[in-house]
Amino acid sequence: MATGKQGKVTLVSAGPGDPDLLTLKAAKVLASADVVLLDDLVNPEIVAFAPRARVIRVGKRGGCRSTPQAFIERLMQRYARRGLHVVRVKGGDALLFGRAGEELAALRRADVTVDIVNGVSSAFAAAAGLGVSLTHRDHCQGVIFVTAHLRDHSEPDWAALAATGMTLAIYMGMSRIDSLCATLARALADATPAAVVQWAGSANERRVTGRLGTLAARARAAGLGSPAIILVGNAMGEAASFDMDSNDAGSEALRRSA
Amino acid sequence: MATGKQGKVTLVSAGPGDPDLLTLKAAKVLASADVVLLDDLVNPEIVAFAPRARVIRVGKRGGCRSTPQAFIERLMQRYARRGLHVVRVKGGDALLFGRAGEELAALRRADVTVDIVNGVSSAFAAAAGLGVSLTHRDHCQGVIFVTAHLRDHSEPDWAALAATGMTLAIYMGMSRIDSLCATLARALADATPAAVVQWAGSANERRVTGRLGTLAARARAAGLGSPAIILVGNAMGEAASFDMDSNDAGSEALRRSA
Repeated sequence: MATGKQGKVTLVSAGPGDPDLLTLKAAKVLASADVVLLDDLVNPEIVAFAPRARVIRVGKRGGCRSTPQAFIERLMQRYARRGLHVVRVKGGDALLFGRAGEELAALRRADVTVDIVNGVSSAFAAAAGLGVSLTHRDHCQGVIFVTAHLRDHSEPDWAALAATGMTLAIYMGMSRIDSLCATLARALADATPAAVVQWAGSANERRVTGRLGTLAARARAAGLGSPAIILVGNAMGEAASFDMDSNDAGSEALRRSA
Repeated sequence: MATGKQGKVTLVSAGPGDPDLLTLKAAKVLASADVVLLDDLVNPEIVAFAPRARVIRVGKRGGCRSTPQAFIERLMQRYARRGLHVVRVKGGDALLFGRAGEELAALRRADVTVDIVNGVSSAFAAAAGLGVSLTHRDHCQGVIFVTAHLRDHSEPDWAALAATGMTLAIYMGMSRIDSLCATLARALADATPAAVVQWAGSANERRVTGRLGTLAARARAAGLGSPAIILVGNAMGEAASFDMDSNDAGSEALRRSA
């Protein structure tokens, strides 16, 4: 490990799972890392891009034993102050959910230099798996990325979100998919196209398409669980695999390139 | 150019501009391309990744002379039917705005195999430039990606979007930034943090941060125009460069890694 130079932290987005979905910049940054701090949901195969680095796992998975946030922040500062290049790796794009805001603020307060490298967020990978645009202009004006897992255990205002007519891309919603779909179905037609994509953008990706009214039951029947993206909205009716009468018929018609 | 094999189309997301923000997969796909169809807003430097390919520019910029959509779709089908690997490159992530939905549907109807490669959408690059998370959990439950440029020249329901309390990431809004901010200011406080990032994620990136009530004037004073992302919401107050009294003070404190 190098010393005597100015240390820094780079916040790197690992994308949805497939190491090939790292950006070229992320791969370069990992190659120069002295220390890598790896989140739980990041594919561990990416450490192959950081052969020089000491790798520390700092999982923060909902409900499980996890590394306290304050400890992670102190760890980054300590290594950076030693003149090391610390690469903090988060799944998807680091700037969507995942507490990057708190880590950036803490590093800024500590006067540590931070760079940020973007990546592919899971909902985009989910749409690619389904062969569908998140925002087909025949159907909507945009897409809402929302987490169902709120700090105070409350719920987003699903009715207000549904009323916008936009595609909903719901993160961290699988533990409450039944109540979530039931609530949405009070504002949207039961027949609204919807989908669940588990492990989107990874080798283990699994998908169910259907209608809002029956999505939760179908996802359960197919054995889908966390981590997954729930997509709801008329644009999802354009999915290659969209078929209200089967679990995943036709989903092989379009797949990500090998 | 190869013949006698099964052709196909790969829809590749070029990211926001910096060629280093291509994914590893996008670089591999470009390397194997026989024909590359390039959108106007894609950085032309990426053709260096496709040395074997015939490159065709098919710009579709708002208001300018552009290649008709039907022609682009026929072109892709024709080359794919000749057994060629056609790579259709779109800026940002191809599955957010940009008519990928229509192209996928046309190719599917023509029975042409399509793969999709995700990328980094501009709003993520804009947030990285600002050194801010799109969704700091102290401030919001998510982010809305919306286009201000609707097919029928109507406007999104800005009041309803503002009422969700989420970060707004507005694409293609610069030509109407005054009316857009004025409308949002009827639903949100004038003091709501906001930002404009032009050419986000490229070497030409330029940023203004401020408050909703004065954002349009400040963006104009700074000479910012299309293409740009407009970001509005309390989470933007965490930006490294956030300073209500100056155009871009402190924006150098955080920058993307070189």
